[in-house]
Amino acid sequence: MLDISAPRGFPTREFEHRLEKAQYLMRSHGLDGILLTSEAELRYFSGFMTQFWQSPTRPWFMFLPLEGKPVAVIPEIGRDLMSRTWLDDIRTWSSPEPEDDGISLLHELLSLYAQQRCTIGIMKGAETSLRMPLADYEHLMTRLPGLNLVDATPIIKTLRMTKSEAEIEKIGHICAIASLSFAQAHNLFSEGQSLQEAFRAFKVEILKQGADDIPYLVGGAGKGGYRDVISPPTEQPLQSGDILMLDTGSVFDGYYCDFDRNFAINSADDDARATYETLYRATEAGLNAARPGTSCKDLFCAMQSIIDTQESERGNVGRLGHGLGMQLTEWPSHAMFDDTILQENMVITLEPSMSYGEGKVMVHEENLVVRDGPPLLLSTRAPAELPVIG
Amino acid sequence: MLDISAPRGFPTREFEHRLEKAQYLMRSHGLDGILLTSEAELRYFSGFMTQFWQSPTRPWFMFLPLEGKPVAVIPEIGRDLMSRTWLDDIRTWSSPEPEDDGISLLHELLSLYAQQRCTIGIMKGAETSLRMPLADYEHLMTRLPGLNLVDATPIIKTLRMTKSEAEIEKIGHICAIASLSFAQAHNLFSEGQSLQEAFRAFKVEILKQGADDIPYLVGGAGKGGYRDVISPPTEQPLQSGDILMLDTGSVFDGYYCDFDRNFAINSADDDARATYETLYRATEAGLNAARPGTSCKDLFCAMQSIIDTQESERGNVGRLGHGLGMQLTEWPSHAMFDDTILQENMVITLEPSMSYGEGKVMVHEENLVVRDGPPLLLSTRAPAELPVIG
Repeated sequence: MLDISAPRGFPTREFEHRLEKAQYLMRSHGLDGILLTSEAELRYFSGFMTQFWQSPTRPWFMFLPLEGKPVAVIPEIGRDLMSRTWLDDIRTWSSPEPEDDGISLLHELLSLYAQQRCTIGIMKGAETSLRMPLADYEHLMTRLPGLNLVDATPIIKTLRMTKSEAEIEKIGHICAIASLSFAQAHNLFSEGQSLQEAFRAFKVEILKQGADDIPYLVGGAGKGGYRDVISPPTEQPLQSGDILMLDTGSVFDGYYCDFDRNFAINSADDDARATYETLYRATEAGLNAARPGTSCKDLFCAMQSIIDTQESERGNVGRLGHGLGMQLTEWPSHAMFDDTILQENMVITLEPSMSYGEGKVMVHEENLVVRDGPPLLLSTRAPAELPVIG
Repeated sequence: MLDISAPRGFPTREFEHRLEKAQYLMRSHGLDGILLTSEAELRYFSGFMTQFWQSPTRPWFMFLPLEGKPVAVIPEIGRDLMSRTWLDDIRTWSSPEPEDDGISLLHELLSLYAQQRCTIGIMKGAETSLRMPLADYEHLMTRLPGLNLVDATPIIKTLRMTKSEAEIEKIGHICAIASLSFAQAHNLFSEGQSLQEAFRAFKVEILKQGADDIPYLVGGAGKGGYRDVISPPTEQPLQSGDILMLDTGSVFDGYYCDFDRNFAINSADDDARATYETLYRATEAGLNAARPGTSCKDLFCAMQSIIDTQESERGNVGRLGHGLGMQLTEWPSHAMFDDTILQENMVITLEPSMSYGEGKVMVHEENLVVRDGPPLLLSTRAPAELPVIG
């Protein structure tokens, strides 16, 4: 059992740095403020953390001004928790109130900006969504006709892609917890057990190892291989010759790991073994390519060139890894479309996958932080050969 | 340990009925189709269930035509899982693809509707959000100038508020699992234990009792009472005289329970006992009022009138309960603003809360299904007196 007393929260200077960087970028992009509506962003700038976001009922807002601390515009039910953060200006209303769910408060906050024809950023780019009713958003913007709305995604993305040491420590901690849990595979999984039981056993194990939550556990099993990589478990019993894969996004103090492991039940056929070995080599190629200055596109190519030597028909999951942190998947993407240049302290996954046989697919995944020199693995490296259970 | 083999999934006729009702309402509202982007709605009409929604990277779409089955427009990574649903028309693209993340496919699908100046619904009302990049939405709609966009929230809300017996069975099952887990409180919680350990112990218990996941577990503890109801657990040790509250939204087969329980550690003071007793009576009043034909506003008043006799300053959480199902909180709200009339087979929470002492708050919660006559409790009724542990 891990020591589960790894530090929680962040010192105030962490939030001060994040805000300073945001305000610097706002100035250089000509923005007078940023309006945020999403969980990860509100937490990023305040430390406000609650599972209450699971309830879709209430919207939550934060405004980053060009100078001074963020302003929280939130339901009254969150006042006590928000007042424990470093923020001073917390404006609340009794929510839910469908006729005016924070819109008057936002209008009051933004109307001076609108009168002065200021430029305000909102997140509207790739991998974002507007976490408030669209009709409320449209209504608010109609009432603020002078406002020049621009996309704040590039600024937030730049900030969030590179992690602080305190963030890396949290991601490293949950990666260690998941690694220790996967290391118990031979005690957790066995022939005859249903996939549902296998998943349940893994969830209990990872909680006992110190994870706070397991928001994501998907996978599959099948004779010689599985056929998709996003399914919930079924009642299907594990059988001899199955390849079992579990992919977990577990959380410690609001930060995710995201990696999978493959196991053969009793024995593995040559095809599965060979596919595993190719993906292991593709991951090695990724580890060798993941250096500051490399583009995500080049990182993709380094992995894909190994896979291409073995794969008859290229799979179509769209990318071979991504950023990792407060969300299960974050910018950037290791894909042909992404020219993002890797920088020190970006936390990423390497996730080569390939199709084989008739409709089977296999995925490998590791989590690492880009450093000056070789990357630091946060997940314990998967074994070089497909592990056999039983 | 519960029998965890309660039926999963739905027969195809369940989806046929949902679609038929939707199409009937679309006709009566003058809609030619509905475009959906959110997890609950895609699942409601297809059965497509995956935790992959945890990844914000890829958008997923579904279109409900006026005749014929829903059309899925989804990332290729979901094709295999979607093809196991009752849908026939599944259109995919290799996602992520920031330059065109499904937008061309949606344009192709909707352009004929735009040419014919049709009316298409999207969800933009209370408790909804647009789960796709706002810039992509704006871009798409600019390319479909003839389309008459209206709010589909009233239609979807009408459908989803009333549950089928198969849905009620799933909610009842997870409520039973959570009830059995709370019944183990004396084995799970104790003086000196940190809140984090207490929460972890409860998560393990509820998984062992048969829950699939625990997306929501919040609560608090404090001498004579807790101060907010949405916090994650801290390292604070449970102390004699504390009131401990845990509120769980656990899941079985994609359906939630949502209720809490209060416990006194070793002993409870008179103030906490009296508050508990008032809230118990408020819940009784809610149970007596929850009948087909009653409005949510009247249900609110029935509970609030009990609380008002004891509460010095009215709390401000906005409502005293809500709908429950595929999401932790759903329409309607038991609040002054909500004139929704209760109907048979609505599944709701009763959640009276009151403030007391200096900044303390207490919450009670039960889950029930409205029936012809008295409601059917899905959670095992909390004890009439504040239970003491230790």
